[in-house]
Amino acid sequence: MSKMLEEIREQPGALEKTLRAGWPGIEKLRAHFEKRRPRFIMLAARGTSDNAAQFGRYLIEITTGIPVGLAAPSVSTLYHAPLSYDGAMVVAISQSGESTDTNVVLEQAKAQGAFTLGITNEAKSTLANLAHETILVRAGREKSVAATKTYTGQLMSFYLLAYALGAPIRRTDLDRLPGHAAAAIRLEKEIIARAERYRFMNQAVVVGRGLNYANAFEWALKLMETSYVIAERFSQADILHGPIAMVDSAIPAFLFCPPGVTWPVMSQLSERLAGLMAETLMITDRSNREAPANAVRVPASLAHKGELPADVYTPIPYIIPAQTFAAALSVVKGLNPDQPRGLNKVTKTL
Amino acid sequence: MSKMLEEIREQPGALEKTLRAGWPGIEKLRAHFEKRRPRFIMLAARGTSDNAAQFGRYLIEITTGIPVGLAAPSVSTLYHAPLSYDGAMVVAISQSGESTDTNVVLEQAKAQGAFTLGITNEAKSTLANLAHETILVRAGREKSVAATKTYTGQLMSFYLLAYALGAPIRRTDLDRLPGHAAAAIRLEKEIIARAERYRFMNQAVVVGRGLNYANAFEWALKLMETSYVIAERFSQADILHGPIAMVDSAIPAFLFCPPGVTWPVMSQLSERLAGLMAETLMITDRSNREAPANAVRVPASLAHKGELPADVYTPIPYIIPAQTFAAALSVVKGLNPDQPRGLNKVTKTL
Repeated sequence: MSKMLEEIREQPGALEKTLRAGWPGIEKLRAHFEKRRPRFIMLAARGTSDNAAQFGRYLIEITTGIPVGLAAPSVSTLYHAPLSYDGAMVVAISQSGESTDTNVVLEQAKAQGAFTLGITNEAKSTLANLAHETILVRAGREKSVAATKTYTGQLMSFYLLAYALGAPIRRTDLDRLPGHAAAAIRLEKEIIARAERYRFMNQAVVVGRGLNYANAFEWALKLMETSYVIAERFSQADILHGPIAMVDSAIPAFLFCPPGVTWPVMSQLSERLAGLMAETLMITDRSNREAPANAVRVPASLAHKGELPADVYTPIPYIIPAQTFAAALSVVKGLNPDQPRGLNKVTKTL
Repeated sequence: MSKMLEEIREQPGALEKTLRAGWPGIEKLRAHFEKRRPRFIMLAARGTSDNAAQFGRYLIEITTGIPVGLAAPSVSTLYHAPLSYDGAMVVAISQSGESTDTNVVLEQAKAQGAFTLGITNEAKSTLANLAHETILVRAGREKSVAATKTYTGQLMSFYLLAYALGAPIRRTDLDRLPGHAAAAIRLEKEIIARAERYRFMNQAVVVGRGLNYANAFEWALKLMETSYVIAERFSQADILHGPIAMVDSAIPAFLFCPPGVTWPVMSQLSERLAGLMAETLMITDRSNREAPANAVRVPASLAHKGELPADVYTPIPYIIPAQTFAAALSVVKGLNPDQPRGLNKVTKTL
């Protein structure tokens, strides 16, 4: 069995640990932000961590109303332009905590007056030392080059951060996430069987919207890394602004389709893709009764019923069948998901 | 000849008009911002306009130090989350001024206290009516579905906006841009000849960095819309964080390679791609003496020598051979660049 698949299975435990061990520090951080609420937030990351950041921006904006942007690291690392960060918080996300570029962004932001926070798997990393505060992902060392458990650990960290910023997130809801991840892992056998069909797929589009937009980026990245599929990632709105022209029957589409506000537009897109003869595969859960029979369905009812949007807790369980699919497809194609050609675990860029 | 190629040729005139007619209003806007400088800026757009926004965020951050983010429209349009925009400016960019989603973002931002600005081709559009201030792109009606002259007009508008925000941009330098665009158009014959080689290309990667990162998105979008090529777009740093694993000799790479701070990392990437047997095509200009002999070279020396970065005025002339390439490739493939399948000129999404 690949390390990637092993680490996919470790996710319920890693999520539980990240939540339980992180909670006391988060309560303190919430007290801090009650007095000093940031006016806006910039998130800095690369690769999978950047996809987690994309989730974080939606979650924080939707649940706290604080505007969030994704930083362009080259502004700091190559152009050396000092940004005015008065009243801002800058958050760097890095599995290793040793990404040169995001650390440079954080260091410069700190010098310009920003409150800084790191989200990392490594308590003794450069990032953890640099940042005013750290949220630790407690996923254990990740051995596969393709990140899985650190991605969902980063998503969990963003729920913690949103809570610290005043979001009406309840601990009891977060406590259910490891169980929902475990439900998603029970799809493993089904997903491995489904991957066979895609042995000769060379290209694909992956689409999400809102809180699952980040998952579209992450699934596409996993397909590129482990299976060398040219996987394009779009929001449901962006694909309609041009890229849909290239879709035909040779290009399957993978869609994240949670219950809630994104369902009407995602289901419209699915019908339009069907009209173009593109085969689609949806990821959804038991609570979405309108999804077609052949959808991948996480065996749990994930529609949230409190004051937050219905899809607020879907991204962690939804990415798990996608990760499993990428690991399985790599094997079906005769490749090794743990050793993508030309990649190392820690990538340093400026 | 396609309307797209006609409109590509109209760019020097459109740029000149956008600059000359817009300047007096910009001087007034500069006086306004001297008293009320925004703490941060959010840009909202879709499709080609979103690519122009990506340029705008680098330009404004680098030349003014004001942090800039790209808005996630669904936060406003689907999740209806009110964002705290005190001290912020929100800019919507739309060719037609009738994009439902970006107009919703602007309207909600205005209600939340943001100063709002529109960049549009249509003086009488909903966007122009909504926004506190408007910068008009004076490109004339765009008939081809694939946007060209409105994209460079939007880039010009961002130079004007950066100037209004206090950037050390000089009118004399902007006055040279229409001439540089004309120089790029003189490459037309060469580009049409080069496009023949790519008759059977189905997939490609397009890479830029910093001020030319947006151009990578725009070139990829043109290839998708006009020629149905599965074109992936990356920053030079992001492709190294995973996607490079999928590159092999079947996937050509298109690179924007200006002189200045991005050249060392772009040229390293080019060498790495060569090691993977991927054929690369660079767009550069006469001032980059280190680029290889087969690079597409805009026949003008574009390296800026003032206090701004060397590549600051390269994006407009660099996108023109890329637009020309997409229009030519479409014809080589027996398609019509003016009529991408399944697209209309105005796309309305939420």
